[in-house]
Amino acid sequence: MDRERFEKQKNFILEIDKEKSIFRQTHLSGGGRRENDAEHAWHMAVMVYLLQEYANEPIDIARTMMMVLTHDLVEIDAGDTYAYDAAGKATEHERETAAADRIFGLLPEDQGRLMRGLWEEFEAYETPEARFAHTMDNFQPMLLNDSNGGGDWKARGIKRSQTEKRNEKTGTGSREIWEYMKTLLDANVAKGSLKDE
Amino acid sequence: MDRERFEKQKNFILEIDKEKSIFRQTHLSGGGRRENDAEHAWHMAVMVYLLQEYANEPIDIARTMMMVLTHDLVEIDAGDTYAYDAAGKATEHERETAAADRIFGLLPEDQGRLMRGLWEEFEAYETPEARFAHTMDNFQPMLLNDSNGGGDWKARGIKRSQTEKRNEKTGTGSREIWEYMKTLLDANVAKGSLKDE
Repeated sequence: MDRERFEKQKNFILEIDKEKSIFRQTHLSGGGRRENDAEHAWHMAVMVYLLQEYANEPIDIARTMMMVLTHDLVEIDAGDTYAYDAAGKATEHERETAAADRIFGLLPEDQGRLMRGLWEEFEAYETPEARFAHTMDNFQPMLLNDSNGGGDWKARGIKRSQTEKRNEKTGTGSREIWEYMKTLLDANVAKGSLKDE
Repeated sequence: MDRERFEKQKNFILEIDKEKSIFRQTHLSGGGRRENDAEHAWHMAVMVYLLQEYANEPIDIARTMMMVLTHDLVEIDAGDTYAYDAAGKATEHERETAAADRIFGLLPEDQGRLMRGLWEEFEAYETPEARFAHTMDNFQPMLLNDSNGGGDWKARGIKRSQTEKRNEKTGTGSREIWEYMKTLLDANVAKGSLKDE
């Protein structure tokens, strides 16, 4: 074992423990507390594995799982930016790039490059793996929210058109899952949780 | 899409949300609240990917990641059994087997068999993947605990001999990581967090 290399890996592993304290807007199923980034990432990785059959194109599973497990690490410094927060969205990229420099910079150089590459690949939304990862990133909170009667949308007066804008590329990862997600939007409009605008 | 199959997958995905409410004895780094099973599994999966170079034998990465992501799902019904709780340990297997029947039984038959197989493989501790997964399962809480000055051991008066008994097979997954873990035990004995017995 190269002890200097291992210490860098260990320091990164301890640093990312902070992701367990970054809370999202989504609530756990059952209407409990808000979910944190580590829980969200765990849930997405299990979903990648179980739902891979619905990806539009073949995906490398380990790569996609690692992408979803780490795609939010930059939020340790940059914080969670709610999907419908326009002001926050305007500065999100700059804040997250600085975070990536620091956090992935803790790792040995080869692994830092690899992990940063996975994050940039996710952000660029161009590979089959990135597209399917984004489908999971949008489907996971929608499933939780739907199971809570759409409460997260209702509390903020979200419109159907906003959810459709957010999901405009979701079908590029999985047409079948996006078709299903639209049935959840329909149901939430019907029960008044999502505004029909 | 076979809608009946998808509904089973969706039901399983929503059911496992409960893992976020199963709390362990380990505290987050920084001495915060206790960690839950989903957070622990997320952390382990990232560690499998980053520390795979230290595995004694080559491992299938996607398989090992999925194993660690799901190895504690049975605790949704069976609860967390603390590593040093002898009475709980005596009934753990029976409780967890019943939980596996119910929880993996929610999935389509092929995936339920696959996921149950991964859990049984982890429990049997015989393949390179299972051995490395167990190394992560023991190293992850030790890292957090060490970063908190060994507080979890100190609070319960844990002895070094108990940690060694618990880790008697940890080196079969990674000799190098187990050698490193022993330096953490030494340091915690030296500072009085772990009893030298």
